[in-house]
Amino acid sequence: MRIGVLGTGIVGQTIGASLTRLGHDVRLGARSAMNEKATKWVADTGEYASHGSFSDAASFGEIVFNCTAGTGSLEALRAAGADNLRGKTLVDVANALDFSRGIPPTLSMCNTTSLGEEIQAAFPDAHVVKALNTMNAAIMVNPLLVPGEHDVFLCGNDHGAKAAVTELLRSFGWRNIVDLGDITAARGMEMVLPVWLRLWGALKTPHFNFHIAY
Amino acid sequence: MRIGVLGTGIVGQTIGASLTRLGHDVRLGARSAMNEKATKWVADTGEYASHGSFSDAASFGEIVFNCTAGTGSLEALRAAGADNLRGKTLVDVANALDFSRGIPPTLSMCNTTSLGEEIQAAFPDAHVVKALNTMNAAIMVNPLLVPGEHDVFLCGNDHGAKAAVTELLRSFGWRNIVDLGDITAARGMEMVLPVWLRLWGALKTPHFNFHIAY
Repeated sequence: MRIGVLGTGIVGQTIGASLTRLGHDVRLGARSAMNEKATKWVADTGEYASHGSFSDAASFGEIVFNCTAGTGSLEALRAAGADNLRGKTLVDVANALDFSRGIPPTLSMCNTTSLGEEIQAAFPDAHVVKALNTMNAAIMVNPLLVPGEHDVFLCGNDHGAKAAVTELLRSFGWRNIVDLGDITAARGMEMVLPVWLRLWGALKTPHFNFHIAY
Repeated sequence: MRIGVLGTGIVGQTIGASLTRLGHDVRLGARSAMNEKATKWVADTGEYASHGSFSDAASFGEIVFNCTAGTGSLEALRAAGADNLRGKTLVDVANALDFSRGIPPTLSMCNTTSLGEEIQAAFPDAHVVKALNTMNAAIMVNPLLVPGEHDVFLCGNDHGAKAAVTELLRSFGWRNIVDLGDITAARGMEMVLPVWLRLWGALKTPHFNFHIAY
């Protein structure tokens, strides 16, 4: 499958590289088509990898991942272009962490809305699926890094899009995939971040994940 | 031990009754010393149970539990009286769920503050410990209701108070008690509520809990 990955940070690079290892063609998108991190990523990742602008990556992908910093995601997606996202599954992995007040960060959208909801509202013809935002990047694509049972959440309005994302998650090795319903559940998924950050501090490792016992 | 429990809802009644079964003397506090639910609770619970006003319960307790509705907790604690809380461990179990916008509720304090932090600020001579707010009341006092490993979080500024709460939690049967640090971690613990509510909907039971796998 052709997959566009928006964002050249650790999350985009990690997800993109993992997708190429699974045999997908991945184009990493950045604000500039000449992005240095993306150029290096392509050289390191091999034949299934390419890079370009946000728009290049979005038009290339049959599925598109939003791995940009959450506070800049809406701007990045506007650069990607609504036409390039129309009818496609848009996997929103981002968290709108706002460090302008210092540490710990706050969420620039929460409680009465969420980044996932705002993206769906701004791009009504895309099928937004929120997923993978509640864990470290390495775990997203390799759940075996964490021992025992643990879970990935997803939500979105389109059943077909959620089925497509579920299939990709299974290919990463996920067994426990919890569908929380429509895109408004992104609010809860994103509001998990503050306790995630405290757990990182308490456990002294980011290699942990949530499991729902019941 | 003498324990005051503020709030006559299901959380206060459940915690209070469980504490009497563990041999503690429990006084359930309400806005009115003549509260009907509290009167019935005492009749049902037996010799270790008594009831009274918020102030009666707080002055009675060596440890005090805040089990009032979160949006009314600061008012209830003012009625309990700062003098009656001075130097005591105050276990804050509440969530400031605001239903005024309908369902799902929002949090009346979050992101830049939390109920736990606001209570600590308003009652600086009490030792506030946030705990037990991330699960159903039945599970709070009986973790065996949920199979497998699962966790209770706590946070607070006073190490002695956290040790006292840890001992009570162990007496309820808790084995996995995760100390998230000072009272500012209440922000993360309370912001878990929106995903908790979605999980209740997805799993169709409130008898689940979070486990941190690592």
